[in-house]
Amino acid sequence: MNSQQFREAAHAAIEEIIEYNETLPTRRVLSAVPPGYLAPLLPTTAPHTPEPFSQIQPDISAHIMPGLTHWQHPNFMAFFPATTSYPSMLAELYSAAFTAPAFNWLCSPAVTELETVVLDWVAQMLGLPEEFLSKGEGGGVIQGTASEAIAVCMVAARERMLGRMLEREGLKEGTEEWEERKGELRGRLVALGSEQAHSSTQKGAIVAGTRYRSVPAPREDGFRMTGGHLREVLERCKREGKVPYYLTVSLGTTSTCAVDAFEEIAGVLKEWPDVWVHVDAAYAGAALVLPEYQHLTKAFVHFDSFDMNMHKWLLTNFDASCLFVRRRHDLTSALSITPSYLRNTFSDSGLVTDYRDWQIPLGRRFRALKIWFVLRSYGIDGLQSYIRNHIELGELFHSLVKGRPDLFSVLTGPAFALTVITVVPKRPQQMRNASKPDPRHEAFTNDFTPDAEKQALFDANAVTKEVYELVNSRGEIFITSGVVNGTYAIRIVSANANTEEKYIRRAFEILVETAEEVLGKGEANGSAN
Amino acid sequence: MNSQQFREAAHAAIEEIIEYNETLPTRRVLSAVPPGYLAPLLPTTAPHTPEPFSQIQPDISAHIMPGLTHWQHPNFMAFFPATTSYPSMLAELYSAAFTAPAFNWLCSPAVTELETVVLDWVAQMLGLPEEFLSKGEGGGVIQGTASEAIAVCMVAARERMLGRMLEREGLKEGTEEWEERKGELRGRLVALGSEQAHSSTQKGAIVAGTRYRSVPAPREDGFRMTGGHLREVLERCKREGKVPYYLTVSLGTTSTCAVDAFEEIAGVLKEWPDVWVHVDAAYAGAALVLPEYQHLTKAFVHFDSFDMNMHKWLLTNFDASCLFVRRRHDLTSALSITPSYLRNTFSDSGLVTDYRDWQIPLGRRFRALKIWFVLRSYGIDGLQSYIRNHIELGELFHSLVKGRPDLFSVLTGPAFALTVITVVPKRPQQMRNASKPDPRHEAFTNDFTPDAEKQALFDANAVTKEVYELVNSRGEIFITSGVVNGTYAIRIVSANANTEEKYIRRAFEILVETAEEVLGKGEANGSAN
Repeated sequence: MNSQQFREAAHAAIEEIIEYNETLPTRRVLSAVPPGYLAPLLPTTAPHTPEPFSQIQPDISAHIMPGLTHWQHPNFMAFFPATTSYPSMLAELYSAAFTAPAFNWLCSPAVTELETVVLDWVAQMLGLPEEFLSKGEGGGVIQGTASEAIAVCMVAARERMLGRMLEREGLKEGTEEWEERKGELRGRLVALGSEQAHSSTQKGAIVAGTRYRSVPAPREDGFRMTGGHLREVLERCKREGKVPYYLTVSLGTTSTCAVDAFEEIAGVLKEWPDVWVHVDAAYAGAALVLPEYQHLTKAFVHFDSFDMNMHKWLLTNFDASCLFVRRRHDLTSALSITPSYLRNTFSDSGLVTDYRDWQIPLGRRFRALKIWFVLRSYGIDGLQSYIRNHIELGELFHSLVKGRPDLFSVLTGPAFALTVITVVPKRPQQMRNASKPDPRHEAFTNDFTPDAEKQALFDANAVTKEVYELVNSRGEIFITSGVVNGTYAIRIVSANANTEEKYIRRAFEILVETAEEVLGKGEANGSAN
Repeated sequence: MNSQQFREAAHAAIEEIIEYNETLPTRRVLSAVPPGYLAPLLPTTAPHTPEPFSQIQPDISAHIMPGLTHWQHPNFMAFFPATTSYPSMLAELYSAAFTAPAFNWLCSPAVTELETVVLDWVAQMLGLPEEFLSKGEGGGVIQGTASEAIAVCMVAARERMLGRMLEREGLKEGTEEWEERKGELRGRLVALGSEQAHSSTQKGAIVAGTRYRSVPAPREDGFRMTGGHLREVLERCKREGKVPYYLTVSLGTTSTCAVDAFEEIAGVLKEWPDVWVHVDAAYAGAALVLPEYQHLTKAFVHFDSFDMNMHKWLLTNFDASCLFVRRRHDLTSALSITPSYLRNTFSDSGLVTDYRDWQIPLGRRFRALKIWFVLRSYGIDGLQSYIRNHIELGELFHSLVKGRPDLFSVLTGPAFALTVITVVPKRPQQMRNASKPDPRHEAFTNDFTPDAEKQALFDANAVTKEVYELVNSRGEIFITSGVVNGTYAIRIVSANANTEEKYIRRAFEILVETAEEVLGKGEANGSAN
């Protein structure tokens, strides 16, 4: 493909992308293809002779589009958003043109230096403590995903903990004794996260090769991890001879966007100063662009790392996970393969940053460009209005739900534009029966209430699940469900560039209609019995 | 940025990219900026108000371009190539538009399914054994980098080895006994790689939390790992109670593009059947598109995984590392966080692939698109001519070097377009003196030869290093050096889309001129003494 062919092909691709975006509302948000749809449509081997772009491009609309789930669709209200924007796409195009596996500074100084600059911009924009900026001992680095950031921090935490333990035992690095003992101690390490922490902490523990234990975060605590529950788990570990070395705290859990009790947790951890605390703010961290949320960052001075995905709520195409650490030396001393006797203050001082030592892979893409383009194209003001608008629409949705207590119960929220609801089962007769002590066996009275509650929960779970599945199978909107401490719930979060009030209202209508349909059916069944 | 603004901005970006590519030869290949050049040129915080693209774009040429090292430059002959192409850029643009953190099939079925299809294309194009295709128990997955692929395989290998050991001891998964014993056994695990294997194996061992030991691959073996040296290391491990669980073999080592003795190694490992063998073919694996190299893949049926970067030699912009495994279950059983009692034959049969269980991060980009575009735009024939041309130019360079034995000595190559050379020091007088026994202390005669050799090596290293540094500091070409088993050597590899014979010849001229200058200076110094 020569320059002129590229120009023509690129213009055609751009028109297709514009057309795609403008026609999004007319498409089915969730792909309806069956598993294995694609292979039969394509040749079984690569072609031997070159194909012109005019032959390749039509396959995008013919074969790829039907298999896409449209994350920018105004009716995409599932998981968390994953947004893109035109400025971000342009930056990704430049990045592809300037391709380099920029594993060190020299490979392309701009790749490293722009990353340092824009991550300082992000840190300030989010109101992170100064410690996380590059000018001191901390700094930011772009990872692929929040889960990768967690794995990186866990490996660094494991090495830091083992190093400290071994040094306290008077052992010397590099000796066989050190290695032997390190192996023994490694088996005692435990990573912690709340029950509501994203599963990537559990996976990170697999990668790091350590145990994992979860901290209760029950409904009565609003699904937040509290200092009290954390202390219980820490003390149990101690009694059992286990060594907690890492903890994920969440700013916005996956199920309900709960925020852990940071100050309490920091207080408890004063007695466990070697535990690495990582703040997983993958989605909700974006809300820290708003001053009214920045009080949340105060406790971060006690923590070791913080991660937020620009590629979720902040208009930057995947991947752009921003990890900040309080002491970059914690990462580089674990992940640099330059032996310690070759390390120098020149490198550690940050004059030259080799980000390969801040991550698992060696090579890296020029991802800072898209963050740079997005921050400049929207400006902090633009991003603030963007986030605020979604939060307000989340509040609107919540108020609509509250207006129909006959159909819905709010489990949590609105929190960061997410509302989590359950459908209210219509079995008043049965429930009353179950709750009322039966005079024939009064001795069991005390057992009756829990049974009734269980039955009520069972009923609620059943209808909520039915409503959820019916809504998604009809395909007008796409939502996700989750089981939160035994409760089956529906999560609704609408937060991309195409989100609008009318889509929120329509989504609520769909939920109402579907709930009425399901509950009506239940009543019909009930009366038939 | 609305559609019309995007159209205009994109057209401008495309013109800039075309102009960049067409003027590459006129640019300085290696960026000459000093550390910290960028921050003073940019604001210290993100702007509050939005900036139009017309304000952003000029900063690319003003501030970013000077900080780029141009990997597509015809005079880029350093490291290994990292190529891009117009079709690849277009695919990256589409990928950014369709952004999704496609962590499971449903998130965008096309992302998963196209990946399976094109990786089968790649496997067949490279002549990999059938076992690595998706139709059986194997399959391919796109990782970010070859180093990430290594880390993933090491974690899977660690879990597979520990699982087998624990089962043989009669323990039951999920019990405390299993966990306890697992911790003990983990401390005995050792990952292996040859001395010449890329350092990412050593880093992978850090990530996986195990020991690492290297296998000698000395000059007399052509820097290849042989069965004999591997056996020695395996037996030493056994004597010491260590358990080798993973081995990297290389198809094209970083320093010299050596190919390990696969058949011999497979033979030795019959006695260690639990060791996971990973073939790191990050760069040279691309040459397997040529039938004349495909005999190399025969031994792979004995190995567990193979990785090759499309983003090095095959015109696909970073990142596109293609990892193939013989049994995908080895990856998913280690990396899936779905508990075993929830796993099903439906998923394991491959009807629906969840690539999140084949990698460390959760989310993933739509990277299959660019491989698809590149394979179709060039065709297998096109890629074959492309690779063959570079290999022939590598042979040309080698023949030029051989024509000047007074200046250069070939350490290795040409291999996969890479030639590794040293500069021949001009100290005949001193060397003869050093080699000739001094009659005053004949007793030490036997010590004289090694000293002379050491001195010769020292001299050669000194002049080679001087030539290398002078060439790079002048900036017309960019090459890398390396120390291979004590020998300081210069690596020259030219293999991107802009590579041409005239640039190869000019690079050789520069090396000759610089070597003559350095050696002439040495002589002048010598005669002055």
